Amino acid sequence: MEKIKLSQLASKLTKPYTPIEVCNIDDYHCYLSLLQGEYPFHKHDGDEFFLVIEGETEIDLEGESITLGKHEGLLVPKGVVHRPNSKRRTIALIFESKALASHWVEG
Amino acid sequence: MEKIKLSQLASKLTKPYTPIEVCNIDDYHCYLSLLQGEYPFHKHDGDEFFLVIEGETEIDLEGESITLGKHEGLLVPKGVVHRPNSKRRTIALIFESKALASHWVEG
Repeated sequence: MEKIKLSQLASKLTKPYTPIEVCNIDDYHCYLSLLQGEYPFHKHDGDEFFLVIEGETEIDLEGESITLGKHEGLLVPKGVVHRPNSKRRTIALIFESKALASHWVEG
Repeated sequence: MEKIKLSQLASKLTKPYTPIEVCNIDDYHCYLSLLQGEYPFHKHDGDEFFLVIEGETEIDLEGESITLGKHEGLLVPKGVVHRPNSKRRTIALIFESKALASHWVEG
């Protein structure tokens, strides 16, 4: 069995919002993503959990923004419109169902 | 919506192997646990993902031990006998199904 080194995976992240899979937990994904710049507003048909490993990002919601630093997380419940919006290189773990569908929303 | 601060939750962890819930992602748990000392050998009917946030632990398997340091993780697949075994205060995130059942195994 092989251990997973987040720093090794993070060093491969060069393109924003192009996640690398960390592992599958049954039918759930854990992936690592480089958040940098504004992602489009969207919502999902399931919950999504963000956990910042390195850097700092805003998670913009309708009417508020939440700043997440290292080892801070946010559970974005099913149906809630959101977008990551990061001014600098930020590495986050994301947990969600493999079957998760996204719906884009005009910003 | 409230952000989750792992350091704040970790400061509440005083008793080994008595996890605190971080959040639910649909029907999955994310919790934070203090790994310290030997936990009994066991296996689950689903996958379990360990991610060390602070400290260092062994995950003992049948015939091998894997050392996990900060930001290192291990996916323990369904049915695999394992136990955390940590000589010092180690904080880990754990992801698993809420419906996960454990089966104890003689060490």
